[in-house]
Amino acid sequence: MVKHWASGLSAGLILGVSTWMAPAQAEVDLDVVNEIRHEGLHHSQVMDTLDYLTDVIGPRLTGSPGMNKANEWTREQLESWGLENARLHGFDFGQGWSFDHSHAWLASPRKAPLIIYPRAWTPGTDGPVQGPAKRVKLEDESDLEKYAGKLEGKILLLDEPREIEKQERSPFHRHDDDSLENMERFPIPGEAGPDWRQRRVQMHHFREKRNAFLAEEGVLATVHISSRDYGIVRTGAGAAHDADAEAGVPAVQMASEHYNLLARLLQRDKAVEIGLDVKARFHDDDLQAYNTLAEIPGRGRNPEIVMAGAHLDSWHPGTGATDNAAGVAVVMEAVRILQAIGVQPRRTIRVGLWSGEEQGLLGSRAYVDDYIATRPEHEDEEQLALPARLRDATWPIEPLRGHDRHVAYFNFDNGSGRIRGIHAQENVAAMPIFENWLEPFHDLGATTVSSRNTGSTDHVAFDAVGIPGFQFIQDRLDYFAHTHHSHLDTRDHVERDDLIQSAVVLASFLYHAAMRDESLPRKPMPREPED
Amino acid sequence: MVKHWASGLSAGLILGVSTWMAPAQAEVDLDVVNEIRHEGLHHSQVMDTLDYLTDVIGPRLTGSPGMNKANEWTREQLESWGLENARLHGFDFGQGWSFDHSHAWLASPRKAPLIIYPRAWTPGTDGPVQGPAKRVKLEDESDLEKYAGKLEGKILLLDEPREIEKQERSPFHRHDDDSLENMERFPIPGEAGPDWRQRRVQMHHFREKRNAFLAEEGVLATVHISSRDYGIVRTGAGAAHDADAEAGVPAVQMASEHYNLLARLLQRDKAVEIGLDVKARFHDDDLQAYNTLAEIPGRGRNPEIVMAGAHLDSWHPGTGATDNAAGVAVVMEAVRILQAIGVQPRRTIRVGLWSGEEQGLLGSRAYVDDYIATRPEHEDEEQLALPARLRDATWPIEPLRGHDRHVAYFNFDNGSGRIRGIHAQENVAAMPIFENWLEPFHDLGATTVSSRNTGSTDHVAFDAVGIPGFQFIQDRLDYFAHTHHSHLDTRDHVERDDLIQSAVVLASFLYHAAMRDESLPRKPMPREPED
Repeated sequence: MVKHWASGLSAGLILGVSTWMAPAQAEVDLDVVNEIRHEGLHHSQVMDTLDYLTDVIGPRLTGSPGMNKANEWTREQLESWGLENARLHGFDFGQGWSFDHSHAWLASPRKAPLIIYPRAWTPGTDGPVQGPAKRVKLEDESDLEKYAGKLEGKILLLDEPREIEKQERSPFHRHDDDSLENMERFPIPGEAGPDWRQRRVQMHHFREKRNAFLAEEGVLATVHISSRDYGIVRTGAGAAHDADAEAGVPAVQMASEHYNLLARLLQRDKAVEIGLDVKARFHDDDLQAYNTLAEIPGRGRNPEIVMAGAHLDSWHPGTGATDNAAGVAVVMEAVRILQAIGVQPRRTIRVGLWSGEEQGLLGSRAYVDDYIATRPEHEDEEQLALPARLRDATWPIEPLRGHDRHVAYFNFDNGSGRIRGIHAQENVAAMPIFENWLEPFHDLGATTVSSRNTGSTDHVAFDAVGIPGFQFIQDRLDYFAHTHHSHLDTRDHVERDDLIQSAVVLASFLYHAAMRDESLPRKPMPREPED
Repeated sequence: MVKHWASGLSAGLILGVSTWMAPAQAEVDLDVVNEIRHEGLHHSQVMDTLDYLTDVIGPRLTGSPGMNKANEWTREQLESWGLENARLHGFDFGQGWSFDHSHAWLASPRKAPLIIYPRAWTPGTDGPVQGPAKRVKLEDESDLEKYAGKLEGKILLLDEPREIEKQERSPFHRHDDDSLENMERFPIPGEAGPDWRQRRVQMHHFREKRNAFLAEEGVLATVHISSRDYGIVRTGAGAAHDADAEAGVPAVQMASEHYNLLARLLQRDKAVEIGLDVKARFHDDDLQAYNTLAEIPGRGRNPEIVMAGAHLDSWHPGTGATDNAAGVAVVMEAVRILQAIGVQPRRTIRVGLWSGEEQGLLGSRAYVDDYIATRPEHEDEEQLALPARLRDATWPIEPLRGHDRHVAYFNFDNGSGRIRGIHAQENVAAMPIFENWLEPFHDLGATTVSSRNTGSTDHVAFDAVGIPGFQFIQDRLDYFAHTHHSHLDTRDHVERDDLIQSAVVLASFLYHAAMRDESLPRKPMPREPED
């Protein structure tokens, strides 16, 4: 099925020299692109995958039964399409958590429902509870001292009320020529900012202390304001997932309109009483989490590997549709297309459906640790006392055998918006190659190669150890306005056409990365930052 | 406090002849406008009124305890500001209804919360209930026959699932020069459309039948899709409020994302089980509803009357903040301002805070019936069998003594957006007067006099019997996108600055309408439409 490979390569590429002068389509096999487009645009199964993950399986919090089901289902599905070596890759995580139902009500001074979702890894209420609401600030240790002995039986409102943000622009965003052109300009990196890792460690320690305090004081529950307005409940974790973490007391995130109401009633000196019922539980039968891996094997023994990945885990209030069943469906569909058209790639095409992304890229980092590169062990006791994910990076990077073999990693995790191009992640030597690869998809809106870095998802785990790791430029749609980590992250907010387009572009990228003579250019190996 | 009244009137106005040539400000007392602006812009109490109505009293469904509280509180408040004759004006309505709390959950094939609000005037569940969901169409009598004996114990999904509407434009809208200029063009009335009154009667009859059927069949509950997306639950009544109405079974409106999920799971042939818990009740101790009325009396015996009004009743899922506590707060603030600056108007300035607007302008119509004009009694038995609100209009209009005395009625009920002008409701003789009255508020954005009609709220009750009744042109904001009849119709979605501006403009309109020599020009008396 694969035809004309390597026809028309420029002299520069044959010599293995990256060049800005590569003639258009030098690297693209248009016959294969025809096959990919035909299979992907006219016989797509991407929405079947998405529907099953979101509607049937539902939310997939790392370590939860939903995530376990998703691991198993994706493994079976990939296997059923003929991928090989479909397997689960386990790594140490901690306990799982899941919830069935939660609801809340204003009981006094009047009665009304209040929209809430629980914060992950906090306990359920063990049936309905009701108590007086109290607004307190518990943001440092002096606050804890101040309130010791005064909070028993109370439901605490821990956040400031907040003015609703007016949606004076459309919440639904697609790139236009201007915004894409803007992506082509590279901003000079600023001075190193404040040490966010240290801040995160501090926050972790204080959360542990506060959770222990809340439980000891007999606080009934805590209430937090959603970080979105218009009734959208956006939430995350209320406690760490480590097996020995302080889970605290039931903690819920409330629609900002309802939270603000409670805060205003309290400000009026009204006695406010609220009720809560949260059915949630921990799962500690298995402290590992799992990535789903599968591949279309390359030729010969120990072929090089090109990868596509997306995280399979999600938050719990919606069904993780745009974050990131969309990405999983696109990645799975890309390899389904390649399998359907019968590619026999030179390099292995491997799929990684990560777990623990939402807790800090844990699944992709575990994969990198196990297969690509390690780092020296910590010896500092303070560091060793921290959960591994919060420890400082150590240097130098110690490549494993897989370091040479992993040629490229492509990630999809910015909502369900279509691919408009790719972030080259400062790998300027890869840019002309990507320009070529995008050429047959200009008519589908994929046009732009940006030298910029983008972060916050699993390609970072690869990029951090010197493997070419990329995330596509996607249309944002209403990802940040509505769905990201919210109860609206559901099937209805996914754009079918965009997923179909994205799977086709990704399939072609994977194919061409797997087939080109040279492996992909690399950036200089990352080194320890100067202080 | 009132100075320079009638200074600078044009000859044309002194002769009582309306004219397009009236010189600017001929009808405006700028000294009084100074006082109104100073009191209203710098010492506003409009938000105190709004806060109390929404946060403390909460929703105010006609006939509910909340509405009764609001009637009493507004009466007391108006009295405390020195208005006279503050009273409740009762009219026949039917039973009240209120709810404390409602929640729902998906029980199978997986567990998740479902966001719902009950439909008004349908029964509660008397504790949690759970049952199999079934999607059925019950839209005419043949559907009822088809399903007889087959629905016991089921929870019925009665609507088609619906694709989510993308918010590709800002949901927050303010008028600009173009849209205001557009309001100045009058569209020629079209042919009479289909007979909506007949359609409404048919719908009423079918709803009664369907509700009786659902109860007889032992249906557990019905579920309806919200007419808004993005988790916004917009709802109304699920049954009539007449004392002898068929209440049916518990009926709930569900967030469209959750409804669509259930519909998709059922389409997959999944056995879907859902649970509901709705705490709701009827109130039939008093079958009347009440308008709150109060006034600043005019001079002499039987002075003429100018009125401002807004409806005090609301729907139940939010707190009726933009629909229409905003209007009530503006109207109350307008008369508070006039009282505070010590006006002694020539005409009585009366406030009408209506009930039953959401059920068909019932409160304002009852006021008009009792004080302004009646219509001949029906003799047709079929008509008499209908609730009065659904009967055909009869002719001719029979003016009462109040018909001459009611000079003008100004309504505020299009959300919390500021006044940008006024709909003259085809009363072109009033237009130059309104142009004059708006002049000192151009700097606050109130500029436009439109000859157009606007409908759907209480000025229609006055206009329908030939009393000059007007609704202001307001900025729409996100009234239709987010808050109208939805659970988001809460305090946070009200624009403070807009209410302050609106109260000032309305106060000035009331003052000038109360003081001008002539009463306001009238349109020809409405007459029976040709068939």
